[in-house]
Amino acid sequence: MAVTHYNVAVVGATGAVGRTMLDILETRRFPIAEIKALASARSAGKKVLFAGSILDVQETTPEAFEGIDIALFSAGASVSKKFAPIAAEAGAVVIDNTSQFRRDDDIPLVVPEVNRADIFKHNGIIANPNCSTIQMLVALDPIRKAAGIERLVISTYQAVSGAGASAMEEARLQCQATIEGKTVQPSIFPHPIAFNVLPHIDVFQDNGYTKEEMKMVWETRKIFGEPNLRVSATCVRVPVLTGHSEAVNVETRDKIEASKVRELLEKTPGVTVVDDPANLQYPMPMNAAGTDPVYVGRIREDLSHDKALNLWIVSDNLRKGAALNAVQIAEEWIKGE
Amino acid sequence: MAVTHYNVAVVGATGAVGRTMLDILETRRFPIAEIKALASARSAGKKVLFAGSILDVQETTPEAFEGIDIALFSAGASVSKKFAPIAAEAGAVVIDNTSQFRRDDDIPLVVPEVNRADIFKHNGIIANPNCSTIQMLVALDPIRKAAGIERLVISTYQAVSGAGASAMEEARLQCQATIEGKTVQPSIFPHPIAFNVLPHIDVFQDNGYTKEEMKMVWETRKIFGEPNLRVSATCVRVPVLTGHSEAVNVETRDKIEASKVRELLEKTPGVTVVDDPANLQYPMPMNAAGTDPVYVGRIREDLSHDKALNLWIVSDNLRKGAALNAVQIAEEWIKGE
Repeated sequence: MAVTHYNVAVVGATGAVGRTMLDILETRRFPIAEIKALASARSAGKKVLFAGSILDVQETTPEAFEGIDIALFSAGASVSKKFAPIAAEAGAVVIDNTSQFRRDDDIPLVVPEVNRADIFKHNGIIANPNCSTIQMLVALDPIRKAAGIERLVISTYQAVSGAGASAMEEARLQCQATIEGKTVQPSIFPHPIAFNVLPHIDVFQDNGYTKEEMKMVWETRKIFGEPNLRVSATCVRVPVLTGHSEAVNVETRDKIEASKVRELLEKTPGVTVVDDPANLQYPMPMNAAGTDPVYVGRIREDLSHDKALNLWIVSDNLRKGAALNAVQIAEEWIKGE
Repeated sequence: MAVTHYNVAVVGATGAVGRTMLDILETRRFPIAEIKALASARSAGKKVLFAGSILDVQETTPEAFEGIDIALFSAGASVSKKFAPIAAEAGAVVIDNTSQFRRDDDIPLVVPEVNRADIFKHNGIIANPNCSTIQMLVALDPIRKAAGIERLVISTYQAVSGAGASAMEEARLQCQATIEGKTVQPSIFPHPIAFNVLPHIDVFQDNGYTKEEMKMVWETRKIFGEPNLRVSATCVRVPVLTGHSEAVNVETRDKIEASKVRELLEKTPGVTVVDDPANLQYPMPMNAAGTDPVYVGRIREDLSHDKALNLWIVSDNLRKGAALNAVQIAEEWIKGE
């Protein structure tokens, strides 16, 4: 059978997520006719690798989207705001990894394992959810289907790569400097991240929550299609390079045992259960980085509530939290409804 | 007025907490007649500093407690189990920083700001609570008194120094090695802690919770005198040297506004409110390390529950979490009822 091949553009190809998108398109053998690496004028002329070839990075211009079938955007909300409608107008399906369109009613926000059908409701743009939301929902959806979810209380332990490649470099250099007893001047983060934790990701909102915390509320409701779901989040940056971790307290509508949750998650696509305390096995960012699954462990019934559970959820924020989920949306889109 | 002076022994004087005890006894000008630095046979002969003098570390033996008025123990539960009753029998008041006696009904477990009166119920031994519990209760007690507490959902971000001085060294060396691209062999922790987080502190219990998590349940109930208080904890080690952080979701009996909580905490002894998101000010372990207060910030009403709040609580685990609280118990004890 003939396989259709697609012209694909990656916007933000020199960033941490953009490079991971190229890597994932290659390793998953996405059916590509032609690939285009786009970035800011400043990055134009750089080279990136794809499938053994060197791609010249081009400036993102309206003309760059001519003939493109699928455009994966991860170059910041302002770039998406300007160019995603242009790309869609030119006939591309845009899969946008920024927060620009996620809350728009007419733009689907998709985690393929959860709401695949929403992909086909798009008008040219499909939004890729926030990293911390994606991994949580992959793990929670089977519980929601089995027992309903009443309320979530979330604390995150988020890696610096969520803030981009330069944030990773800042964290590395700061750790080195701190060990050598030198003073550390932060530039990407508002405070030093080496040997420190920051209860602050993205900008503060008027209600005292950060935008990252509110994304977990808004996006969880939209993807689950439960506009009144009760969600409370505290989002924290930790000195980890890649791999977000989350302590999630899940209050369910119906009682569900930890053993049943473990059993459900063990057969959930995209999830790997790592839950063997006797052998000191539980999910850790160290093991998740560079891999695709959402890892779930520390699955236990909440001693303080007769219909609640505690879970520990870890995944690579650049892969399932960003690039992989975007490519999976593209894969499902080309498969069709 | 004549001031009584006391013969004080510090057991575990070469450890991270023991050294901090000596430092705090000195800087708070505890009325000391004679001070004795005790440790294991292995550490005997080492030197520690106290008030400009060098103390010879002696082996902990039954005879070492003769004439001692106050014995501060922080050398592990097995040392306390063996020697605390001997010290008490010899006439000393033991203030024990280990978990050995904390759950014993006839041994008070004290955070002076919360349950000072319990100090005077002792039969020779007073237990110092776990680090993560102490800082949380200092911050929660005013809320409990004003509005009652129904339930706590806690996620911790705990520093490596909670596992001792050698754990701090392991974390430093591992970070250095990781930056240099070398392989890291953990020894104190079961897995590498550099650029990683471990959802595992102290040993796993049969119920799937760790002992550290259960300590937060047991000790909170005992200190607050509320044996049925509902508490759920996830305790996590992060690559921070000193300073524990906690994301705490507090469900209250009566509705209490965030502004009221802020006002209450601003006048609570031992608490410093750092809660100015507009100027990116919130508690961080980096700033808490080496200082005495319990820092509270990110004070906000829970959007998912009409009688709940979210707090972010940070303190130096070696000081208020251990050595300072122990010395404060001694200070209150000598003041009398």
